[in-house]
Amino acid sequence: MPNIGIVGSGIAGLHLGLFLRQHDVPVTIYNDRAVEELASGRLPNSVAHHHITVQREQALGIDHWDINEYGYFCHHHYIGGPESLVFQGDFAAPSRALDYRIYLPRLVEDFQERGGEFQVRPVRAEDVVTLSERHDIMVISSGRGAMSGMFPRRADKSPYTAPQRKLCVGLWHGVRHSEPRGVTMSISPGHGELLEIPIYSFEGHVTALLFENVPGGELEELANADHDDDPAAFQKLTLEKAKQHHPTTFERIDPAAFRLTSPRDLLQGALVPTVREDYLRLPNGKYALAVGDVHTVVDPIIGQGANSASYSAWVTGETIIEDLGFDERFCQKVAARRAERVHAISDWTNLMIQGPPPAHLLELLGAMSQNRAMCDEFTNNFSYPERQWDILASPERTKAFLAKHAG
Amino acid sequence: MPNIGIVGSGIAGLHLGLFLRQHDVPVTIYNDRAVEELASGRLPNSVAHHHITVQREQALGIDHWDINEYGYFCHHHYIGGPESLVFQGDFAAPSRALDYRIYLPRLVEDFQERGGEFQVRPVRAEDVVTLSERHDIMVISSGRGAMSGMFPRRADKSPYTAPQRKLCVGLWHGVRHSEPRGVTMSISPGHGELLEIPIYSFEGHVTALLFENVPGGELEELANADHDDDPAAFQKLTLEKAKQHHPTTFERIDPAAFRLTSPRDLLQGALVPTVREDYLRLPNGKYALAVGDVHTVVDPIIGQGANSASYSAWVTGETIIEDLGFDERFCQKVAARRAERVHAISDWTNLMIQGPPPAHLLELLGAMSQNRAMCDEFTNNFSYPERQWDILASPERTKAFLAKHAG
Repeated sequence: MPNIGIVGSGIAGLHLGLFLRQHDVPVTIYNDRAVEELASGRLPNSVAHHHITVQREQALGIDHWDINEYGYFCHHHYIGGPESLVFQGDFAAPSRALDYRIYLPRLVEDFQERGGEFQVRPVRAEDVVTLSERHDIMVISSGRGAMSGMFPRRADKSPYTAPQRKLCVGLWHGVRHSEPRGVTMSISPGHGELLEIPIYSFEGHVTALLFENVPGGELEELANADHDDDPAAFQKLTLEKAKQHHPTTFERIDPAAFRLTSPRDLLQGALVPTVREDYLRLPNGKYALAVGDVHTVVDPIIGQGANSASYSAWVTGETIIEDLGFDERFCQKVAARRAERVHAISDWTNLMIQGPPPAHLLELLGAMSQNRAMCDEFTNNFSYPERQWDILASPERTKAFLAKHAG
Repeated sequence: MPNIGIVGSGIAGLHLGLFLRQHDVPVTIYNDRAVEELASGRLPNSVAHHHITVQREQALGIDHWDINEYGYFCHHHYIGGPESLVFQGDFAAPSRALDYRIYLPRLVEDFQERGGEFQVRPVRAEDVVTLSERHDIMVISSGRGAMSGMFPRRADKSPYTAPQRKLCVGLWHGVRHSEPRGVTMSISPGHGELLEIPIYSFEGHVTALLFENVPGGELEELANADHDDDPAAFQKLTLEKAKQHHPTTFERIDPAAFRLTSPRDLLQGALVPTVREDYLRLPNGKYALAVGDVHTVVDPIIGQGANSASYSAWVTGETIIEDLGFDERFCQKVAARRAERVHAISDWTNLMIQGPPPAHLLELLGAMSQNRAMCDEFTNNFSYPERQWDILASPERTKAFLAKHAG
């Protein structure tokens, strides 16, 4: 029976840990923050779990949040411009967004109840070799701090060297949910996108407004404004920007009730999408495998980061269960098995933040606005990102997709 | 609906063609020999279809040969030396060996009945571009002639530059089948192997004796002796060599009845195991994908060539059905999806003909001779070559496999 060490208690580390416990594999998660710290602190993200991830949660026995109450069912699209477009696409089965300060601590609890060891201690890159002596392999799933730097950046899969969006995400009261309850994906050409996400947090069912702002555009200000300095001014700015750029969401905002759920429920920043090498050999001959954000960081614009991490964890778990060794062959198997989906997520996300947007993406969005079946397929592909990339990887492929729906 | 061109009517071309016809995809097979020529001529090989390939044949509706009558059920092992070892491993489900001069023509007939186009014409490498104008992609599955040369050799996956065995395979009368009916894998250390295969041919249920002879060893002579020059001398030589080196097969030979089923049912030669690039871009921008022997040539020592080709065809077919484009992304998907199994077949086969044999292979064979469950697992892995390579890829992995069966 192998013995697995995991660094990091994000979705990748916990889904892998829980998978291994289901198969009675001894596993230790090392994390630099205690459960109480995971449950407190600033909003860490605003993450969607698409149905394929929900299915993994069901299989792991951690589906604690009834999908009909906590889930959402469709994407509402708004594309601004001289002739704005409003249209909808349905999932075949619901997605779900939960505040990770609720989600991750509950999973740590599940993990410990099921015999997983959870050790709170700082882990720096240089500690990994020492920890690896206790385990057959180290899985590095902490995207925080310097751990990512262990794994070289892959220039061939990382087209950007600077953030393509300045991010501002907060949890808000005062936003009436869309009907049917869904995520609104609103595009203000040249300025950025708004993802309005029904999310469950400490204050119940609230709304995450994730502004993806093009640097230099009219919305960038949102990523820089200081909320705590003048909360009323921040609310006013957010309302004004929503009104000008994202009107279908603005229509559902009650200005009198519109306020952050807490000053801590706001995250501003930016990231550089990066794909890193899958694994490395440690000086003692053992291996460290990168999973989740350590392996690929994607912009949150299409809500695929958690899905990529959970999938990667699952593939890693399956390969651990079936394999006999934890050598380079093992790492190469994991890398090869997850590559199609994980790279499709990265490539698709990078296309969505490309500026100016490629003509075939605009053509697809326009066609989707006129064809519900096409938009449903696009929407459902949020669970099957490799199929989405089949459609978007080239203008010829998009053309073939449009022809398929026309024919 | 795509339109597919296939060059070659071996198992890869025909399994792919039949798969595509099941999905109503227009497909043309170009072959340099007519059906009558496929059915006549010299013995082309002595090929085993392990059960995973039989399952594909069932799915394709070409399982015309009742597995209980035509199949075989186990491997009988003999390892010579001061203390010879005799032991047996069972399949979970039977394998089958058919004369390809019966098998391939029947599949061409099925293919044509199901709407496939079968064109007889010489196809040289330089014709592929012209043919590609009629199709969305060209699949090259003819290992004969210069077609392989289109695809560069991969040095990283091709450890040998010369044949490691001199081959002599004939179909024989006068060999009583083993009980239970199985393939005998007989090893004469330092001199080579004999695979004794129950095979169905024009004369009914006969026996293929595939001598795998180490160059410079006592058996090499078999690959060079001229049968037609003196059939009685050739029989005598074969009997003598079997007696000296492969006694468990020799015991079941009736010398009075021992003769080739026909002078044409003998094949002597040698091959260099080679892995080639998966695909190439043609000058007109279309792609040619290598499948089967064009992609990987393996020594027949463990009977994996046809299984590799059929699997590769199946993956190609599935990817054609689901995809929208036939560009580099398509070719890379096929390459990635088949890589784990196809490369495991190649790596495992290359280990089996390595000289001298690696210590961990000998250790495994020795342990198998004492442990029926271990030998059954090894035997059944002829359908799952990637699992076999999990066991054999390193001494540490073999050790872990032995520990698993000991524990």
